[in-house]
Amino acid sequence: MGNSFGKVFKISTFGESHGKGLGVIIDGCPAGLPIDEEFIRAELQRRKPGQSKITTQRKEEDECQILSGVFEGKTTGTPISIVILNTDQKSKDYSHIADKFRPSHADYTYYEKYGVRDYRGGGRSSARETAARVAAGAVAKLLLGHFGVKINAFVSQAGQIKLEKPYQELDFSEIEKNIVRCPDPKVAEDMIEYIDEIRKSRDTIGGVVTCVAQEVPPGLGEPVFDRLHAELGKAMLSINAVKGFEFGSGFEGVIMRGSEHNDEFYQEGDRVRTKTNHSGGIQGGISNGEDIYFKVAFKPVATIMKDQQSVNEGGESVTVSGKGRHDPCVVPRAVPIVEAMTALVLADYLLLNRLSKLEPKG
Amino acid sequence: MGNSFGKVFKISTFGESHGKGLGVIIDGCPAGLPIDEEFIRAELQRRKPGQSKITTQRKEEDECQILSGVFEGKTTGTPISIVILNTDQKSKDYSHIADKFRPSHADYTYYEKYGVRDYRGGGRSSARETAARVAAGAVAKLLLGHFGVKINAFVSQAGQIKLEKPYQELDFSEIEKNIVRCPDPKVAEDMIEYIDEIRKSRDTIGGVVTCVAQEVPPGLGEPVFDRLHAELGKAMLSINAVKGFEFGSGFEGVIMRGSEHNDEFYQEGDRVRTKTNHSGGIQGGISNGEDIYFKVAFKPVATIMKDQQSVNEGGESVTVSGKGRHDPCVVPRAVPIVEAMTALVLADYLLLNRLSKLEPKG
Amino acid sequence: MGNSFGKVFKISTFGESHGKGLGVIIDGCPAGLPIDEEFIRAELQRRKPGQSKITTQRKEEDECQILSGVFEGKTTGTPISIVILNTDQKSKDYSHIADKFRPSHADYTYYEKYGVRDYRGGGRSSARETAARVAAGAVAKLLLGHFGVKINAFVSQAGQIKLEKPYQELDFSEIEKNIVRCPDPKVAEDMIEYIDEIRKSRDTIGGVVTCVAQEVPPGLGEPVFDRLHAELGKAMLSINAVKGFEFGSGFEGVIMRGSEHNDEFYQEGDRVRTKTNHSGGIQGGISNGEDIYFKVAFKPVATIMKDQQSVNEGGESVTVSGKGRHDPCVVPRAVPIVEAMTALVLADYLLLNRLSKLEPKG
Amino acid sequence: MGNSFGKVFKISTFGESHGKGLGVIIDGCPAGLPIDEEFIRAELQRRKPGQSKITTQRKEEDECQILSGVFEGKTTGTPISIVILNTDQKSKDYSHIADKFRPSHADYTYYEKYGVRDYRGGGRSSARETAARVAAGAVAKLLLGHFGVKINAFVSQAGQIKLEKPYQELDFSEIEKNIVRCPDPKVAEDMIEYIDEIRKSRDTIGGVVTCVAQEVPPGLGEPVFDRLHAELGKAMLSINAVKGFEFGSGFEGVIMRGSEHNDEFYQEGDRVRTKTNHSGGIQGGISNGEDIYFKVAFKPVATIMKDQQSVNEGGESVTVSGKGRHDPCVVPRAVPIVEAMTALVLADYLLLNRLSKLEPKG
Repeated sequence: MGNSFGKVFKISTFGESHGKGLGVIIDGCPAGLPIDEEFIRAELQRRKPGQSKITTQRKEEDECQILSGVFEGKTTGTPISIVILNTDQKSKDYSHIADKFRPSHADYTYYEKYGVRDYRGGGRSSARETAARVAAGAVAKLLLGHFGVKINAFVSQAGQIKLEKPYQELDFSEIEKNIVRCPDPKVAEDMIEYIDEIRKSRDTIGGVVTCVAQEVPPGLGEPVFDRLHAELGKAMLSINAVKGFEFGSGFEGVIMRGSEHNDEFYQEGDRVRTKTNHSGGIQGGISNGEDIYFKVAFKPVATIMKDQQSVNEGGESVTVSGKGRHDPCVVPRAVPIVEAMTALVLADYLLLNRLSKLEPKG
Repeated sequence: MGNSFGKVFKISTFGESHGKGLGVIIDGCPAGLPIDEEFIRAELQRRKPGQSKITTQRKEEDECQILSGVFEGKTTGTPISIVILNTDQKSKDYSHIADKFRPSHADYTYYEKYGVRDYRGGGRSSARETAARVAAGAVAKLLLGHFGVKINAFVSQAGQIKLEKPYQELDFSEIEKNIVRCPDPKVAEDMIEYIDEIRKSRDTIGGVVTCVAQEVPPGLGEPVFDRLHAELGKAMLSINAVKGFEFGSGFEGVIMRGSEHNDEFYQEGDRVRTKTNHSGGIQGGISNGEDIYFKVAFKPVATIMKDQQSVNEGGESVTVSGKGRHDPCVVPRAVPIVEAMTALVLADYLLLNRLSKLEPKG
Repeated sequence: MGNSFGKVFKISTFGESHGKGLGVIIDGCPAGLPIDEEFIRAELQRRKPGQSKITTQRKEEDECQILSGVFEGKTTGTPISIVILNTDQKSKDYSHIADKFRPSHADYTYYEKYGVRDYRGGGRSSARETAARVAAGAVAKLLLGHFGVKINAFVSQAGQIKLEKPYQELDFSEIEKNIVRCPDPKVAEDMIEYIDEIRKSRDTIGGVVTCVAQEVPPGLGEPVFDRLHAELGKAMLSINAVKGFEFGSGFEGVIMRGSEHNDEFYQEGDRVRTKTNHSGGIQGGISNGEDIYFKVAFKPVATIMKDQQSVNEGGESVTVSGKGRHDPCVVPRAVPIVEAMTALVLADYLLLNRLSKLEPKG
Repeated sequence: MGNSFGKVFKISTFGESHGKGLGVIIDGCPAGLPIDEEFIRAELQRRKPGQSKITTQRKEEDECQILSGVFEGKTTGTPISIVILNTDQKSKDYSHIADKFRPSHADYTYYEKYGVRDYRGGGRSSARETAARVAAGAVAKLLLGHFGVKINAFVSQAGQIKLEKPYQELDFSEIEKNIVRCPDPKVAEDMIEYIDEIRKSRDTIGGVVTCVAQEVPPGLGEPVFDRLHAELGKAMLSINAVKGFEFGSGFEGVIMRGSEHNDEFYQEGDRVRTKTNHSGGIQGGISNGEDIYFKVAFKPVATIMKDQQSVNEGGESVTVSGKGRHDPCVVPRAVPIVEAMTALVLADYLLLNRLSKLEPKG
């Protein structure tokens, strides 16, 4: 259970960190969509480890192949399966942690739930699973691109270092120009320096990713339980290390008056617009055509290069020693994952919306 | 679409604000659970309008009846349907807003999505729908109660007025003793005074509800997409007016170091415990037996007693006049809704967990 | 579990035979469909008991009301709930069978599954549940009618009495003109006489219902598991007393050669047609535009007016005495149920098909 | 859509006949089940082409590998993915049928539904997809085996040649001893001779597979729509070339009287039994502990070695020439597929039944 996401554009991921391979099946992608395999590979490159000094130095090649669902460069309407084989399945020795519960990892809870666990690199709970999501998200982006929808995520906070400018003042084309993926070059520099210090202190730190979806047509979303922002929230909270989600005015909206917070409507040509956008592009759970924006909070990475106290499966006190190569701060590599999950939700709801009216749109 | 929630303890709600009735079907409640109808009624009383001077003065009786699924006081395993008839379906005239889009309501987005809308009192987008959730949540609470799980929500912020104490220092038995549902009597008084002022100024304000689930057995949650906190987050974000969700250390966890944030394990009798609980009782998406706690941000109520600019279905500029009886702050009445949705998620995952291992627990 | 049907045009039924009421929620009906309440009532009349001498003499009024989802005569896209209250909840004494397992009923299996059961009139396993399906099916028929699809079911066999003519030679307008719902008046007479004899002998008999769906657009159906005929088969097998399903050439196709059985294509105007139709209008699980036809086998009604041996919950031998008013043959009243389930499947797949291609149809 | 099957033991298959590979993800297999990879391979051998003179001479190796979900020989509760790479992806030329619609294949309907199709060997509509089902079914069989459930399918009819003996008189250990998989050696010989003649005449013929599930615990099945036999029926009808399904008394039950057909109960030790078993082990959609048995009708294979008339995508009349290597009769190779689908349904319902009662079974 819990390995699938989406209602009609539905993905199912599989694979453990150090198993033979991992991947994803996309079921429900409409037929006739041109698939650019290079784009999928490029998205995977954005997520993969070893990109820079502020990410883990671990090497994973993440070479994907499409096994089905694409014929002569286009989707056929049948399941698209994308597999990433773990060519580099190390014979590495995990016996030192095989029965220990690493603090704030999923070791203890998996053991409690399943009675057994694949302890190699976190098994299924490893963030390596998100490679499969990024591959699927790339397909979702291709679908959304066909309809003109644009998605940009970026790092808006790394520990204490915050990007204060509102997203409207940022140049999204700057995002990929620095290794921390912050669109303000000055703030980016500060973030990089800060994260590098954290890394040197053998510790880790949290951060915030902001995401903006533009040109989303109005009408996407379902009422009641499957509100567009509820699904986006679930999507984000399903990413490793995420602790919080807010959209539009978010937690700050709490202290506003209704008279301030309400977004008044006006007509612009044949389109209904709002003067302000505290709603974050979503009203009553349904997109209104304005920019959708939200923030995602990531905790500090649990793997640190320091010794920690814990217990093992037998209930004995043990020390978990810090070793290996891990990210000092997860947010730079989380940017493409946030975008991928956003794309998956929007692609799903874009298709779902074809079912809303008696006569489908032309 | 979007009117059902849950995987194996599944609810489906129906009904518009001013239609003939509303209700819920619960499919998947195990057979043999004693049903206390009075408890369901009492939960509905906690949500209903007209409770106090700081809630709307609108009267709705919310008398529910169970049509099926319960026989001789116990569940039979078949769908439990609970219906609330709208005895008080007013002949009230809605023509003044029938074609107008009220700012920050769902009027425009429903119209865009469906082409038609029931404009009477917000139709399906009305918070009245949550009465059905509270009724279903009461059944979920009865199921959870059987297994010893406890859920308490309370108002931790109303506009600027914040309850600063950590939940561990609060006495949950105080919650229902004041009309704002804040367990600190002194802070409660400030909140009440503040909300009453807002009301008198014909405006509205937001707030925060905190929820704590205790005695949740370890092992609840599914990996990857259906993490326990992701489902809780979706559940909360599906409540009207919610703009944000955070659990455990939440957005504040962002600025912590891994060495501070990690929750070290220790053994207490036959149970594995954590020394701190920044994880909020959930690790890798699965409960670890510690308290689960989270915060939910609510925006100010969109209906205000002031005139606002907007447009109508024809694209003409119009003024929406403030009238009617509405809540100046939604959080006091949101408390039972937050609890209900929490109960629904936990009941669902408690049952799901029976499927995790080859041999079910005795 | 198991009380919902459909993927995007989804129904959920609730209610026991002798509880307070039963009903259905339809989630996923597109907005803008005109709803003719009289048509829904007329469909319920076709199913209800007490219609003629060859059906049960039991009276049930089956007065339905729509509680939600319809506004100003049209669907709004929100859940349509239809409730039938059991006005006639008898104080009848069921103590004589409360702990006995009636042969070939669901008494024993429900008891085994749930540990408790509502023994009044079969509880949830009663065919009374199909009233809710017929109501939902009426809405599905209205949707299909909008797109020109026609569905006709009829009795093609009652015990030994068989209608031998192929459906193409029948006049469907004759179906409702006789009480057995057989479109051949002569055969109908024989059937009626035969069933009446069975009834007088205090016994019951089985029968076959044939169903034909016409003007179904090509392209409906999903590959692999959700083939159109697989879903139709499941829908039929979910009706009380059904023991078999075959479509197109069915069991007789087994003895045909491929060269005989294959349906060659030809072009007729701008439409691809088949010369024969052994495929029953479905190829590879997807409609090809030809008539869809299938047969449904019903066993003899389990309630007979004779004494039978059985055991009770305590494992003691008991005699179950025949009493009450029951159908000697279920097929005449099964006709509208078969049509309803067919309509539900086709409506669902018609909507699903909007998701097949990149660009939706105009 | 339509590529997944099961509710809590859920499989999703992917892959086209002549793509890079095909496979299956199993989500929901409980943790702790020992996985015998040799057994999975053996099951695939039973299905694979080229086994004997009465099956296609096409060679496909069907070498599977498990990529995830199994660790140290046991399931971990995470998705089990099994992939079969098409090592033998021929550069074969399909241009002669690329735009032609083969009679009684899915060519036309896929084209109509999706606008594009993978014409190589039928693409996704090829029976090659069932290899993935057989692999998944093998895992389901391992799970069922743990609980003592046994499944045996066999050929009971090939064209006109019928096995008349009731299944109770057959020795299931004979099934795999002959190439047609009929447990009566004499009848098997007749069948083999018959099919071989058909093959020589360059034609094809249909057949019937009977399946018997034994030691199924009582209580499996869900009421109303997801009745155990309805799900079995759907599972069978989802297999390529299936035209009909009947269980227990089936179509023959139609002519029986209720007094003959009803299965009277008696007590045998601590178990409730039935004297006869016209119910086929399922009452009210739920297993009663007696043998579950049913029949599945297969049409003659559509690919014949003769010329046939048809049209192409442009609407022109064309001749489709018979060539290639295909099965003259599908039933011998369908036996393991029928068993696999049966195992998948029973495994799913066995797990589902853990949710029926307040207290799970020990």
